[in-house]
Amino acid sequence: MKLIVKDMDIATGGIQVILINQKDAVKLDLHHGDRVIVKKGNKKTVAITDIAESKKAVSPGHIGLFEEVLDTLNVKQDAIVTIDLIDKPASLVSIRKKLDKKELTKEEINGIVKDIISNNLTEIELCYFISGCYTNGLSLEETGALAKAIVDSGEILNFSNGLIFDKHCIGGVPGNRTTMVVVPICVAAGLKFPKTSSRSITSPSGTADTMEVLAPVSVKLTKLKIIMKKVGGFIAWGGGMGLATADDKLIRLRHPLSLDPQGMLLASILAKKAAVKATHVLIDIPVGLEAKVVSEKKAKILKKDFTMLGKHLGMKIKVILSDGKEPIGHGIGPNLEARDVLWVLQNDIKAPSDLKRKSLYVTTLILKMAGVKRPKETARVMLESGLAYKKMQDMIRAQGGNPYIDPNKIKVGEFSYKVLAQKSGKIKYLHNKRIARIARIAGAPLDKAAGIYLNYHVGYNIKKGETVFIIYSDSKEKLKYAITELNKKPVFEIN
Amino acid sequence: MKLIVKDMDIATGGIQVILINQKDAVKLDLHHGDRVIVKKGNKKTVAITDIAESKKAVSPGHIGLFEEVLDTLNVKQDAIVTIDLIDKPASLVSIRKKLDKKELTKEEINGIVKDIISNNLTEIELCYFISGCYTNGLSLEETGALAKAIVDSGEILNFSNGLIFDKHCIGGVPGNRTTMVVVPICVAAGLKFPKTSSRSITSPSGTADTMEVLAPVSVKLTKLKIIMKKVGGFIAWGGGMGLATADDKLIRLRHPLSLDPQGMLLASILAKKAAVKATHVLIDIPVGLEAKVVSEKKAKILKKDFTMLGKHLGMKIKVILSDGKEPIGHGIGPNLEARDVLWVLQNDIKAPSDLKRKSLYVTTLILKMAGVKRPKETARVMLESGLAYKKMQDMIRAQGGNPYIDPNKIKVGEFSYKVLAQKSGKIKYLHNKRIARIARIAGAPLDKAAGIYLNYHVGYNIKKGETVFIIYSDSKEKLKYAITELNKKPVFEIN
Repeated sequence: MKLIVKDMDIATGGIQVILINQKDAVKLDLHHGDRVIVKKGNKKTVAITDIAESKKAVSPGHIGLFEEVLDTLNVKQDAIVTIDLIDKPASLVSIRKKLDKKELTKEEINGIVKDIISNNLTEIELCYFISGCYTNGLSLEETGALAKAIVDSGEILNFSNGLIFDKHCIGGVPGNRTTMVVVPICVAAGLKFPKTSSRSITSPSGTADTMEVLAPVSVKLTKLKIIMKKVGGFIAWGGGMGLATADDKLIRLRHPLSLDPQGMLLASILAKKAAVKATHVLIDIPVGLEAKVVSEKKAKILKKDFTMLGKHLGMKIKVILSDGKEPIGHGIGPNLEARDVLWVLQNDIKAPSDLKRKSLYVTTLILKMAGVKRPKETARVMLESGLAYKKMQDMIRAQGGNPYIDPNKIKVGEFSYKVLAQKSGKIKYLHNKRIARIARIAGAPLDKAAGIYLNYHVGYNIKKGETVFIIYSDSKEKLKYAITELNKKPVFEIN
Repeated sequence: MKLIVKDMDIATGGIQVILINQKDAVKLDLHHGDRVIVKKGNKKTVAITDIAESKKAVSPGHIGLFEEVLDTLNVKQDAIVTIDLIDKPASLVSIRKKLDKKELTKEEINGIVKDIISNNLTEIELCYFISGCYTNGLSLEETGALAKAIVDSGEILNFSNGLIFDKHCIGGVPGNRTTMVVVPICVAAGLKFPKTSSRSITSPSGTADTMEVLAPVSVKLTKLKIIMKKVGGFIAWGGGMGLATADDKLIRLRHPLSLDPQGMLLASILAKKAAVKATHVLIDIPVGLEAKVVSEKKAKILKKDFTMLGKHLGMKIKVILSDGKEPIGHGIGPNLEARDVLWVLQNDIKAPSDLKRKSLYVTTLILKMAGVKRPKETARVMLESGLAYKKMQDMIRAQGGNPYIDPNKIKVGEFSYKVLAQKSGKIKYLHNKRIARIARIAGAPLDKAAGIYLNYHVGYNIKKGETVFIIYSDSKEKLKYAITELNKKPVFEIN
C-alpha cells in the first residue's frame, strides 16, 4: 500500500513507530503494535503500528512517521512510501530457544544481531532475548560469538598492526574523567591509544562530552587515521563512528530494570574494544553502593569473566577494582570536568588530588602491560614533566581544537547556588546518584557550563556554614528546578 | 509541572504515552521512555514519555496525550493536567527476584498485580515479569496466588451459592462455537451456567462476537443476576464486566512471542472462572499443528496442571483433549457462525454435523460432572427435543435480542468469491491460520456478515472445479484484499 508521509515530529528515542488511519489499518488487517515494513527506494525499516481513530492525526491515504522512521528512510513530509505486512523474523525462533534454556549456535547469535541492526525485532522481542540471556546465562562461546557479531555489526577501525591500548570504566561515578589524563600520559610514553568514548546517557557528562569542551569529538575516520600516525592517540566520540551499532539498542532496553546479563555486558564492552583492534585493555570496575557494581563479590565475578572472554577474543585484559563510593575530582559537568583535567595535566595547584592519583595508578598498570620498565616512575615523570600536557595539546590541535585553552578561563554557569553544611563534622557520605541528578537538572551535559563543583570529599572535616558544593547553571529557571530537587532528599551526610 | 492537554488522536492499543516538548523535558530531566505520573483531579496514570523536538507536535507548556491516557484520565483537549517524575514501583524488585529464579511470596505477587492495575509498570517491565515466569516457572503456590490476585483485580459475580458450571476452550480453531450449543443444553438440563466469553483478538470471531448477532452481549451485572434467576444462564461478553482486569495486559504482551508461561496461562483462565464463582469447569484443549496447543505431550502436561490448580482453588476441573487440526462448523465469522449454531439448535438439515457432535460430547461430560444420570442421552434429548433451542430463545430474549430470529435470514456478505478445487482428490489439510486471516481481511469480526463458508472438511472427497469455500464480504475492496491474501500461499491441500 502506498501512503503519503506526514512528519509527526514525535521522537520515541529508539522505537520505530508509524501511525496510520483506522480505515487503512482495516484494509491491511493491521492492529496496534503490528510490525510493518516501510520502504522508500532502497531504504527500508521495520516499524510498529499505532492507529489514528479519526482523521485528525492522520487521514486515510497518509502515514504518520515518527522521527526515528523519518531518519532511517531519509524522507520528508509529503514523500510517498510503501508499507507491507511482514512475517516474524527467523531469529524469533532463536530467542525462544534461549528462553527455553538452550545454548545458541554462532549462526543463531549472528542472526539475532543481524535482525537487531535491520530493525526487524520489536522492543518486546528484544526484551525477551535480554531476559533469556539474563536468566539462562550465556556460555563463554555464546558471549564470544555475541561480541564478534556486535563487532561485525559496525565499522572496524584498522589503525596499525602493532599493539593498541584501550581502557574502559564500568561507570556510575560522577566526575570520573581519568581517561582524559591517562590517554595523554600513555601516548606521551609511546603507546598507541585510539580512545573512543561515549556521551552521557544518564550521567552529567560522558568522556566525549567533556573532551568536546577542548576539541571537536566527531572526527572522521580518515582524519583519525592521520592523527594516529602523527600523534599516536585521540579521544573521540565513538557513537559517530558506527562501531558496534547493534549494541546501542540492547543497552537501552537493559536500562529499565538495570538488567545487565553478564555475558551481554561483557560482549558489549569488549566488542567496542575489538572494533578499534585493541590488543591490551584495562578495565576499571568502581565498586560502591551507588556505582554500577555494588559489591566486591560481583566485581570479582565480573573480573574473572572479563579475563576469560578477553582470552577468547585474543585480547590481553587487566581488571582493577576501584573505589566507587563518591565522585572523583571537583567538577561535575563538561566544563567543570575539563578544567579539572587541564589543571591535573598542567600540574596546577587547583588540580584535584584524587583524579591525579587514580589516573597515575591506572596509567602505571597500562604501562606495565605494555612492558614499560619502571612504569610508576614513567607515569609520574610523563605527567609532572609536562610531556603528557604537550601530548594533550597535540591531540586537541589534531582534532581541531584550541591547544592553548586556559582552564581558568573555561566558563562556568552564570547562575550559582552554594550548598552549605548545616553542622560541623566529617563528611561521611556523598550520594553519587543525587549529585548526578542535580547536575543534570542544572543543565549538564547539554549546557556545557552547568554542573556542580565539590569543595569537599568523603572523610574531610567541614565546619557549619562552609560550602559543601556549588551548583552552576546557565539559566535561572534550571537552577530553580535543581534547588527544588536538592531539597527533596539529602545529598551528603555529615557526622 | 502543570501542562495544557493536546489530544494527539493516536492510539497505541495499550501503552500509555505522553508527548512533551524538549524544553519542558529538559526542565524535568526527563528522557525518552521515562515514566511520569499524570494527574487530573483524583484520577492518575503512569505514562511513558515521548519527546517533541520542535513545537510542531507539542509546544512548551503543552502535553500531548495519546488516546489511552485521555481515556484513563477522562480529559479532553485544553484541560490542565500535572505531571511529575515518579520513582520505580516496588514490584520491580519482585520482578527482578523472579528473573533471579526465586519463588515469590503471595504478597509479592499481589504487589505486582496491583501495580499492573494501577498502570505503574511499563510494557518492558511486564515483559521481564512474563519471561521470568516463563523461564523459571511458577510453583503451584505462585500460580494459585497469581490466579487469586487476578480475580481480586476485578469484579466478582456472585450469583448463588449452589453449583455453577463453566467451560473454557484454549482456542486456535476457527468456527468453533461449541459454547453456544453447550450452554443452552446444559441450562435446559437444569444447570446454572453464567458464561462470560471473549471477543476476538486475532481470530475471525469470538463467542461474544457471534452471540452478539443474536442478542446484546454487554449486559449490566444487575440484569445478569435477574437472568440467572429467571433463565439459569447467559452468554455475555466478559470484557465489559471488569472481571480479572489485570489479565488483559499480560495477555497482550505474551502475544508477540506466543509466550504462554504455563502458570500464567492457567492462572489467567481459572481466574476468569473463579470470578464467576464457578465450581465445575470443563477445559477443552484442541490439539493441532495450527491450534494453540500443538502436541499431545504439551496438552497432557497442561491437563495435569489445570487439574492440580483447580484443586488448589477449590474447583472441580475436567480436561479434554480434542481435535484442533481444522475449523469446526461451516461458517467462520459472526453471522455465518450464528447461523450454524441456530441450525444445530433447531435440528435443521443444514446443521454442521461436526459442531453438533462436539457440542454433545462436551455437554455429556459436563452433565456427568453435575451428577446427571445417563448424561449422553440427556444431552441428546435436550437438543433434539428442541428444549435447548427454547432455552437459547429465553437467553436471547432476556439479554434483549429477538428470540425468533430466522437463521436462514441472517445476512451474509453482499460480495462473495468462490474458491474452487484445482484437482480432484481427498482434502488432506485445511490451514486454520490462513483461513482465519482471510476471513479477517474480508472484514470479520467487525463486519458481522463477512467471513468464510466451508463446504468441505478434511477427509472429504472433492472433484476438480467444485467450491471448497466461499469468501463473503460487505465491501468489494475488502474482498479484493482477501483474494490477494488468498493467492499468497495455499489454504488447503488435496491429494
